[in-house]
Amino acid sequence: MHTVLRSRTREVIIGHDRPFCVIGERINPTGRAKFAEALRAGDLSQVVLDVRRQVAAGAHVLDVNAGVPLTDEAQLLSSVVKLVQEHTDLPLCIDSSVVEALAAGLEVYEGKALVNSVTGEDDRLAEILPLVKRYGAAVIALANDETGIPETAEQRLEITGKIVRVAVEEYGIPIEDIVIDPLAMTVGADTDAVNVTLQTIRAIRDTYRLNMCLGASNVSFGLPDRHALGSAFLAMAAAAGLTSAIMNALAPECVTAARAADLLLGNDPWGANWIAAYRARQA
Amino acid sequence: MHTVLRSRTREVIIGHDRPFCVIGERINPTGRAKFAEALRAGDLSQVVLDVRRQVAAGAHVLDVNAGVPLTDEAQLLSSVVKLVQEHTDLPLCIDSSVVEALAAGLEVYEGKALVNSVTGEDDRLAEILPLVKRYGAAVIALANDETGIPETAEQRLEITGKIVRVAVEEYGIPIEDIVIDPLAMTVGADTDAVNVTLQTIRAIRDTYRLNMCLGASNVSFGLPDRHALGSAFLAMAAAAGLTSAIMNALAPECVTAARAADLLLGNDPWGANWIAAYRARQA
Repeated sequence: MHTVLRSRTREVIIGHDRPFCVIGERINPTGRAKFAEALRAGDLSQVVLDVRRQVAAGAHVLDVNAGVPLTDEAQLLSSVVKLVQEHTDLPLCIDSSVVEALAAGLEVYEGKALVNSVTGEDDRLAEILPLVKRYGAAVIALANDETGIPETAEQRLEITGKIVRVAVEEYGIPIEDIVIDPLAMTVGADTDAVNVTLQTIRAIRDTYRLNMCLGASNVSFGLPDRHALGSAFLAMAAAAGLTSAIMNALAPECVTAARAADLLLGNDPWGANWIAAYRARQA
Repeated sequence: MHTVLRSRTREVIIGHDRPFCVIGERINPTGRAKFAEALRAGDLSQVVLDVRRQVAAGAHVLDVNAGVPLTDEAQLLSSVVKLVQEHTDLPLCIDSSVVEALAAGLEVYEGKALVNSVTGEDDRLAEILPLVKRYGAAVIALANDETGIPETAEQRLEITGKIVRVAVEEYGIPIEDIVIDPLAMTVGADTDAVNVTLQTIRAIRDTYRLNMCLGASNVSFGLPDRHALGSAFLAMAAAAGLTSAIMNALAPECVTAARAADLLLGNDPWGANWIAAYRARQA
């Protein structure tokens, strides 16, 4: 199953037979006080730097979040999405918890975006899926619902089934445009967290063949040497069937782990990309 | 299922609920012309250096191979095993394709060794399993037989079943002392090689719960940036159910990947080992 994302001029395909899709997480003011302050003051210069660095680091898609408290997020996200499009031809992932901000971002986006995100909650599905349908976008859907974060893979698979039914049958969204987030929790808070995530990924792949995307940085929260943990996690998750991640594209170890997974899993035949990336690093 | 290895004074347990067992591959003259020449001339000083470096790097077990062409391998392996025991209390993996050399190594080993290796071939089973039984050792058994390297996980699982039947029923070897090598071939020669290895690991874990060990360095043969590929492979394989590997313990990335896998898979509760290793690197 292929999820196609587009900018004005470029297409990126997410799929189980494709190289792992690296979605750069950097354009996000959460936890970046200076960046949040600049955005609030209308200074978007850091955005341009973040675009350039993530493109250079090998991101395939860029996540764009402008969630600064006490601002007009819709207006701000719209400005940032416009600016990012002037500086890269990578497709974008439009990221907000505010429905109006998603709408504003989609309105100015030229192409087929990835919407980040909906959940299995009835009211969220009813608010966000009409937007996804209207703009012909793809959407990340988190495998949780009104009852919270399910502790088992079976429960997450069940919510996935509900999301697919509602999106396809009620809103006519093509199934390949649903990208499930199997939920990656912090292993430092729950020693079984990664096992449950990996089980969920395998179950969703085997049941639906859907593409999947998760926030890879959560896993190592609070632990030292996070890039090494992130790299190992990405390799495991790709082998289980994860096809994309919103991740730190500026950590070379993590991007290299995704590329290594491509080669090892047969999605980079004869290592063409691997060898090209190696040569680029040597040059 | 726990495979217990012992030196005179130390015990190492391989198991699905245990930290991944790193077996250092370095004491092996294959591909090391100078080392082979020194061994042939009776100079064993490099062995002592290889012991020290692998112990310092965090190996749990050391593989010992003395296969130098045109030497009395039995006599040489016996000398090397004796010397290694004087310099470390880690358990050893006694490695030879020559039955007489395995016998000589086992004869001087004080503890419970891991024998490397037998295959599913009738004549190899008949030659090596009596030795394993006599010395109360554990044994690595490769999942191939007279017909060569099986291309599918199903065939490798079938050979595993044969090995288990013969070892347990004909020789009375405890099932937990059989460590299956699911076979890791070079991904540069066959783009599906790692997928077949991972399928084999999952099948053996789900069917028999046996411990498994493979030569992790093969996978990346002929490709650049081998440690990054090896690290990603180890993480994937551990998540699939591999419990040990004969590997380059002197590549910090690879040892770190094994430790990251422990933490992510719940075999290093609350990251105690991970944090200790991080602090040791900072010190």
